[in-house]
Amino acid sequence: MSVLYGVGVGPGDPELLTVAARRVLGLAGVVVALSQEGRPSRALEIVREALPETARVHRAAIPMQRRERAEAAYAALAETIAGWLAQGRTVAVLCEGDPLFYGSFIYLQRRLQGRFPVRVIPGINSVAAAAAALAQPLARGSETLAVLPASAGEERLRAALAQFDTVAILKAGRRRHALARLIADCGRADEACYCEELGGGEERLLRDLERLPPGPGSYFALFLVTRRAP
Amino acid sequence: MSVLYGVGVGPGDPELLTVAARRVLGLAGVVVALSQEGRPSRALEIVREALPETARVHRAAIPMQRRERAEAAYAALAETIAGWLAQGRTVAVLCEGDPLFYGSFIYLQRRLQGRFPVRVIPGINSVAAAAAALAQPLARGSETLAVLPASAGEERLRAALAQFDTVAILKAGRRRHALARLIADCGRADEACYCEELGGGEERLLRDLERLPPGPGSYFALFLVTRRAP
Repeated sequence: MSVLYGVGVGPGDPELLTVAARRVLGLAGVVVALSQEGRPSRALEIVREALPETARVHRAAIPMQRRERAEAAYAALAETIAGWLAQGRTVAVLCEGDPLFYGSFIYLQRRLQGRFPVRVIPGINSVAAAAAALAQPLARGSETLAVLPASAGEERLRAALAQFDTVAILKAGRRRHALARLIADCGRADEACYCEELGGGEERLLRDLERLPPGPGSYFALFLVTRRAP
Repeated sequence: MSVLYGVGVGPGDPELLTVAARRVLGLAGVVVALSQEGRPSRALEIVREALPETARVHRAAIPMQRRERAEAAYAALAETIAGWLAQGRTVAVLCEGDPLFYGSFIYLQRRLQGRFPVRVIPGINSVAAAAAALAQPLARGSETLAVLPASAGEERLRAALAQFDTVAILKAGRRRHALARLIADCGRADEACYCEELGGGEERLLRDLERLPPGPGSYFALFLVTRRAP
């Protein structure tokens, strides 16, 4: 019986792959690349240079916006993967960022853990990548850090902005203007940055929220709100 | 004028170095390894195999427990580093975990940013490593995550445990028994794990807080409190 790996590939820059991730990609019998239906897999783009030419890649499109259809797609994919594992093939599921940090891998792992050995190779997540791109400390000393997706709702976002030194708001693209107003309303506009496509060719870092272009941004956009150094 | 790099080396397992970290270690004129006074540098142990034999390593002991003496030591070290940078040497400061996530690098960066180009290579932090070791999701869907050092104080820890789906409590070794009681008091003992020396030879993962051995644990210990999968 073989091992299921969740392989974190980091936020976009292929150089942020770990040595462990490269090793597992080299030994995997099947490499699974998930993507939102109708879109290419960004994780697959990130590892393209690191994949052996002989790698067998299985692409799986998931209708992530529709909960019931997504659950059915994850369930079907989990059974396909179970078949490979039962045949003795090592399976590596590519995960943008970190597999256990808002990753799709969680929905596969839930169905396969206990039936097969599962190992997770952690990856650099988008919050660490944003801080690095900005050269801005995430937290120091006794400071505190909160991470919330935009979908957590206004009440929880406001509470976090009031109570935490650093606040990262993920999946912020669609609601970026409402979120920028909320951050300003909480008195923290001067401490905020908007980050898009980290490590990719279209990386954008915006320190002045008033210059946010009109319309929605990309799904993987985030706001990072930090205390400025004294 | 040369570049100052903060290089995240991850939580302990040398395989969790990134490709970028290995590249920068290969090109650095000086590699700086910080440690608490009287202790070896754990970051240096992590990269030992990845360092070129010709690397020039500068060890710097910092009295981290004494704030004023630590500030003076960081200031002196920053000036030493400034001298190397001015001579055109690339300097890589090794950072356990991620440089900008509760890292000592922050105290050097603050003194050198603006005077020299600074680049940060993010690393896997201890929270992601703990989740991976436990194969336990950190956050999914609309869940929220709070990270606090034990020194944040009881009030902020209680508020986070009440309001956030996932709570990581860092630097928890010395106060581990008081923290375990606090977590239980907030009704979340069943959701908590205690993690020590992640990725090192002495890694310990404890899911039953009542079995915590007497006395203090190591400085880098953490508690991870997560919602169990539905």
